[in-house]
Amino acid sequence: MNNMTSTDNLIFGRNAVMELLKSGRSVNKIFIAEGSRDGSIQKIFSLAKTAGIVVEFTKRDKLDKLCGGRHQGVAAMAAAINYSTVEEILNLAANQNELPFIILLDELEDPQNFGAILRTAEAVGVHGVIIPKRRSVQLNATVFKTSAGAAEYVKVAQVTNVAQTLKQLRELGLKIVGADMGAELEFWQADLSGGVVLIIGSEGKGMRRLTRENCDELIKIPMVGKINSLNASAAGAVLMYEIFSQRRKTLQ
Amino acid sequence: MNNMTSTDNLIFGRNAVMELLKSGRSVNKIFIAEGSRDGSIQKIFSLAKTAGIVVEFTKRDKLDKLCGGRHQGVAAMAAAINYSTVEEILNLAANQNELPFIILLDELEDPQNFGAILRTAEAVGVHGVIIPKRRSVQLNATVFKTSAGAAEYVKVAQVTNVAQTLKQLRELGLKIVGADMGAELEFWQADLSGGVVLIIGSEGKGMRRLTRENCDELIKIPMVGKINSLNASAAGAVLMYEIFSQRRKTLQ
Repeated sequence: MNNMTSTDNLIFGRNAVMELLKSGRSVNKIFIAEGSRDGSIQKIFSLAKTAGIVVEFTKRDKLDKLCGGRHQGVAAMAAAINYSTVEEILNLAANQNELPFIILLDELEDPQNFGAILRTAEAVGVHGVIIPKRRSVQLNATVFKTSAGAAEYVKVAQVTNVAQTLKQLRELGLKIVGADMGAELEFWQADLSGGVVLIIGSEGKGMRRLTRENCDELIKIPMVGKINSLNASAAGAVLMYEIFSQRRKTLQ
Repeated sequence: MNNMTSTDNLIFGRNAVMELLKSGRSVNKIFIAEGSRDGSIQKIFSLAKTAGIVVEFTKRDKLDKLCGGRHQGVAAMAAAINYSTVEEILNLAANQNELPFIILLDELEDPQNFGAILRTAEAVGVHGVIIPKRRSVQLNATVFKTSAGAAEYVKVAQVTNVAQTLKQLRELGLKIVGADMGAELEFWQADLSGGVVLIIGSEGKGMRRLTRENCDELIKIPMVGKINSLNASAAGAVLMYEIFSQRRKTLQ
């Protein structure tokens, strides 16, 4: 365990490790805390053995140190994370014979929000999530853990120039829709039934100016309370399900 | 700081303490980590001074130990939490001349989910949240922190007998709606525009049988991915905004 210099490929928590094993992604090693014996740990152990993955039993406090979070007695070293490309995301939609449904996270910072958004994105059949290469949270162990394994299934593409990517996607006929506190249109008033890129901004500052200028439509999530802000993953869930339901209604 | 035997009334984090001070709830003491000097801390300091609240400067590691979480340099001891009653929740709706919009959390376990649900509930104008007295997460410091201060504003009532409470609310004309993975009705197909109690079950097991039997309608959040479960707070946000939007559309 001494050679690890990065936690980028470390996955921990029972659901997350289970989903990793099911996903078919290459796994270098599984760590199980000594004394962990309950059902899901045993299932992970036997899945790992069947797949020929090395299992190392280790002291619980070593696992604590390695994971820096609630590992529930199990962690896995996965092979390096493979980011997708925007083209692969578009190809997935085409292969499924669906209009593209893409999320763009504009400088999101919190890995827990990223993981939670991936979990919902997987549930509504998003074809892929685009993030900027710089000043954005990246795929890491916390993201995998919070996503409950969804990060194994949802394509994530990094781009260097968000504005440029949006222009290209618009030229392909996708509608670029940004969530913005100051918008006039309430989200259910927008037509979101076609090919769409939904942009969710950073937790504190929302979208950048240049990103906002590249939107075809700005929508807001109305609020009537005193706090006047939603968690980014709650906002994401509300908007993704609006898009999902509009698409379903169009098909029905 | 030695006499504290409970963290129940301890609020930490800058937003949470700021909202506590703004809410008018009685505060016994504010703790600020030595060396914390930035804008929001200074604002908290001056608000506390204006309100005549004792401010104690303390070592950062003492604050770490006290809060057991990310306190951002500030914590507050609030007066005991006052739970509301179901009657007070109904009265609030009546005073606002609105049909009641109530959330019932059936044995929710995770304080972060509770806090996140309260944050969204506050944003959509929920009149109150009902929780069981036993086997449920209660209002505590983590809930306040995760709610970004919303827990100061949303009425929370504890009840001893959920089934009995639901029967009484149905007799008042409220529709009892339960979120259930196995339901046939997709959530946007249900009429949720009237007085409503929305039930969200526990993270692992969903609603209890007796609670489910007391529902007028079961609705599901459809999912098309491989993971097939949503975070309780994401599910809550989707359903609360469906109710909110149906109510808004009825008024428009």
